[in-house]
Amino acid sequence: MVAVSEIQMASDPERGNVVILSETPDAENYFMMFLGDSEFAAIAKEKGFVKPERPLTHDLYLSIIEKAPLKFSRIEIFDIRDDVYYARVIFQVDGREHIVDSRPSDAVALALNREVPILVAGELFRKKLSKKEIQEYETLVKTVKF
Amino acid sequence: MVAVSEIQMASDPERGNVVILSETPDAENYFMMFLGDSEFAAIAKEKGFVKPERPLTHDLYLSIIEKAPLKFSRIEIFDIRDDVYYARVIFQVDGREHIVDSRPSDAVALALNREVPILVAGELFRKKLSKKEIQEYETLVKTVKF
Repeated sequence: MVAVSEIQMASDPERGNVVILSETPDAENYFMMFLGDSEFAAIAKEKGFVKPERPLTHDLYLSIIEKAPLKFSRIEIFDIRDDVYYARVIFQVDGREHIVDSRPSDAVALALNREVPILVAGELFRKKLSKKEIQEYETLVKTVKF
Repeated sequence: MVAVSEIQMASDPERGNVVILSETPDAENYFMMFLGDSEFAAIAKEKGFVKPERPLTHDLYLSIIEKAPLKFSRIEIFDIRDDVYYARVIFQVDGREHIVDSRPSDAVALALNREVPILVAGELFRKKLSKKEIQEYETLVKTVKF
């Protein structure tokens, strides 16, 4: 598992919403997610790029969870099966560890809010590619659901 | 406050996503919400209309909250200010009551999932209108944010 310290976001009408995770700003490898608008907004809010006037779904639940004796440990993006990436959220209640299934986008927004580590399985990272390779790759990767 | 027992949903490209709350199926008055796609999907899933393959944001957090000693009491849609409707979620942790701010759409999805009462302030209900009045009203109500 690789700990992510760099998160880049881009949104344009043609490519849609893209979030790129990497170990460092100049890392050779990266993990790329294409997101729907509300999933993208949740991450953008945590990064300080937008300030929604009303609580997003994440904000509602995180304000509820704040009142409960619950401690988040980390999130992990750990697998891809049938073109779908899988993540999990690891947390503790009364010293007991629990793991729940999550989409990577939700897990990343949660981790940014709670300031817990974002870990990505090394084999899910992509190498930096040439411009032509990126174009080909993006055509391919657009079909990946998050 | 009026307890809602009837929830109707409609989605079409022109009007967008509409959720209508009423006390009974043949009630004279109703509360109408216009929602974004992901807010609409969360309610549609709770109503059994769609079965998402991966957990929605609601599902992630509700599966986390399931592990915590937290009991939901009810949700209330209680106010409108500057064309924005306000809701709150009421829950208990260790016998102590907490109230958190929510958008009405999130609160309704949560209430349906946890099977707790949905209450709407009586003054927020609209009377049943003639077809012409509904058309005029809908032009107006589309500007209301949720």
